[in-house]
Amino acid sequence: MATEEFSVSISEAPVEEAEAGWKLHPANGADLRFLGVVRETENGRRIAGIDYSSYGPMAERELTAICRALREERPAHRVLIHHRTGFVPVGVASLLIRVGTPHSAEAFDLAREYLKRIKATVPVWKTIRYEIP
Amino acid sequence: MATEEFSVSISEAPVEEAEAGWKLHPANGADLRFLGVVRETENGRRIAGIDYSSYGPMAERELTAICRALREERPAHRVLIHHRTGFVPVGVASLLIRVGTPHSAEAFDLAREYLKRIKATVPVWKTIRYEIP
Repeated sequence: MATEEFSVSISEAPVEEAEAGWKLHPANGADLRFLGVVRETENGRRIAGIDYSSYGPMAERELTAICRALREERPAHRVLIHHRTGFVPVGVASLLIRVGTPHSAEAFDLAREYLKRIKATVPVWKTIRYEIP
Repeated sequence: MATEEFSVSISEAPVEEAEAGWKLHPANGADLRFLGVVRETENGRRIAGIDYSSYGPMAERELTAICRALREERPAHRVLIHHRTGFVPVGVASLLIRVGTPHSAEAFDLAREYLKRIKATVPVWKTIRYEIP
């Protein structure tokens, strides 16, 4: 779902695609983007990538609820969130959080809080695909 | 100046240009980008943009010193910093800070610390160009 103030999505689309329509807003002096990237090792072993799966509609509803809650608790801001699903190879982003705010301190606080809440409550599961040695 | 670990620049180039060669690194699970954007109002008045000027070599040396210091104080990370100079219109980014770290908490802490130190010590001056009413 998308409004002027927030847009959330969970799909197999790369984060770059989800982000393509985002424009800087002249009311916002700070634009902060967090990318969560698949790392090359897990538990000390080399991996090929991670398979992300979610029950899409429920995960999107939860993301939307997080955005609504933070927009009530915090000052006005714009936010774009995308969680990629399916297989994501090492070195590629699986999560995008982008926040626009008038001043920089709010952008850091908000992006961090979005990340924390997404990790805590959004139903996305990961299966690590190890490299065959 | 540029190394594998950090790259700093101050010039009239748009931030998108300075950022073009940056690639996600598979050792880093977090990639955070801060953009400082010229806002549409200053002191309650509409503006057209901001003119940034600096004594280039000194400003680049100071940026480099900030990077060296933070790479000694903090865990390993990659960082890219660009400050645009000349006239930057409303809604366009004048400052880019991009940080790659293994985990997300470090990325937020570092980007914030870079921003704080840049604002405090890098010799870049701004002249606001108000809109003619």
